Amino acid sequence: MQLPFEIFRDPRAMRAKAEDLRRDGRRIAVVPTMGALHDGHVALLRAARGKADVVILTIFVNPTQFGPQEDLSRYPRDEAGDIAKARAAGIDLAFCPDAAAMYPPGSQTFVEVRALQQPLCGASRPGHFAGVATVVAKLLNIVQPTRAYFGQKDAQQSVVIRRLVRDLNLPVEVIVAPTVREADGLALSSRNSYLTPEQRAAAPVIYRALTVARERFAAGERDAGALREAIRGALATEPGLSIDYVSVAEPMTLRELARVEKTALASTAVRLGATRLIDNLVLGAG
Amino acid sequence: MQLPFEIFRDPRAMRAKAEDLRRDGRRIAVVPTMGALHDGHVALLRAARGKADVVILTIFVNPTQFGPQEDLSRYPRDEAGDIAKARAAGIDLAFCPDAAAMYPPGSQTFVEVRALQQPLCGASRPGHFAGVATVVAKLLNIVQPTRAYFGQKDAQQSVVIRRLVRDLNLPVEVIVAPTVREADGLALSSRNSYLTPEQRAAAPVIYRALTVARERFAAGERDAGALREAIRGALATEPGLSIDYVSVAEPMTLRELARVEKTALASTAVRLGATRLIDNLVLGAG
Repeated sequence: MQLPFEIFRDPRAMRAKAEDLRRDGRRIAVVPTMGALHDGHVALLRAARGKADVVILTIFVNPTQFGPQEDLSRYPRDEAGDIAKARAAGIDLAFCPDAAAMYPPGSQTFVEVRALQQPLCGASRPGHFAGVATVVAKLLNIVQPTRAYFGQKDAQQSVVIRRLVRDLNLPVEVIVAPTVREADGLALSSRNSYLTPEQRAAAPVIYRALTVARERFAAGERDAGALREAIRGALATEPGLSIDYVSVAEPMTLRELARVEKTALASTAVRLGATRLIDNLVLGAG
Repeated sequence: MQLPFEIFRDPRAMRAKAEDLRRDGRRIAVVPTMGALHDGHVALLRAARGKADVVILTIFVNPTQFGPQEDLSRYPRDEAGDIAKARAAGIDLAFCPDAAAMYPPGSQTFVEVRALQQPLCGASRPGHFAGVATVVAKLLNIVQPTRAYFGQKDAQQSVVIRRLVRDLNLPVEVIVAPTVREADGLALSSRNSYLTPEQRAAAPVIYRALTVARERFAAGERDAGALREAIRGALATEPGLSIDYVSVAEPMTLRELARVEKTALASTAVRLGATRLIDNLVLGAG
């Protein structure tokens, strides 16, 4: 039975609707986003569609995960366009609250994933993952899905969310879907829209650098320091790019490795002008 | 339809059972405890029984809410006695996990109610309310109740839990039941069992001191400092007692008041020997 498409803005109304659906035995899948949907999001929506009775898209540009100097105010917003794309991908409902609905006066509870929120992006974005963990916990409680979909592009986010779901005993399965890339390898990101044509032309070096590490790993390199150096070396060929971090870490704990025994998460964050971009590849998987 | 009584120890099995019950349309009420049940707990169980299809008692002496110098190892434990009392009060199921089941290796997520966890008991028990908030969030996700019952004796705990339930959009109603007292006014607490006969004889001064504030308030006193002094003065009549704090605070924010406009939470924590006891009265309610 097809649900009439509806956009919910009130958390209580959304939760009441989700409770009704659950009571009717419907399996809910959710794709939490900050909007500005690209083909990576659409891939998540299609994956969700395959396994659920009801697919809910959430769009919420969450202020608590932005630092004071970050791009909250200029983050791209296009709700009508997003809803059109998502409906074409088969969603049933959307949840698009505003900040006042999600954080009414007096709000002060934060979910902290204490170790995993520290390294990598956490080091240059203090408070970011507490903001992410908190809003994801809230969204999951409101939407009450059996499955929640996230993209591998945000690797640390996925690890943080898997951990909080396990640690807080949330009744949801976390699905992490592969990164979707442009033809030249650049990982899709809503922030790619900030790039000037020159920066856009330089940006594929990020994926190429990670690919160098993957090739070195495939050729037998197991020294994590050498793999990090290989990534740094490849990134250095683009003079307009500055490196935030280059990491070869254990994929679950995100601890930097000295040697790669089986698998590793090779990841990097760079800046092209004012735009910060991240990407990663898992070495030794599959 | 009567459920066969069962004790669950595995969080996944408990959650699966709760999900089945919810799907069947049963309303679950939970009374989270650390065991050592007294008549205050029994009153919570009876209140829960009146409003739910399934009443679940949880017993878990939560290590993350005890400080390193506190009484975790000697906290009273009597599961068989607790279960007998609770079954007499009409519970359907019990959830009695051990610490390894609740905090498997790698656990690191904490729920922090940032402002409310700081004052009063939070000041002398750093980390206590993060431990409480975290375990309550976990228990609510495992047991999936529509109502959860707590005692007013732990006033700050109740405020913290109400706040986290609201802030994390948890689909549960928090019920706070009145403090149950001995005939001489001493609030029931599992920690009363630590008291020597002399300390037990001194302990009713705590309630008497709070009652002095209530009487002064009823007589028109609105200066919060004067009310705090009245409580301190009454407590000082017991030389074996030392004061941790005396507070006259706004009941929802727990901010100390200068004047009481409508209502206030008058609360205190004291030590009798090594035993720390707390109590409170709401001024101006009802």
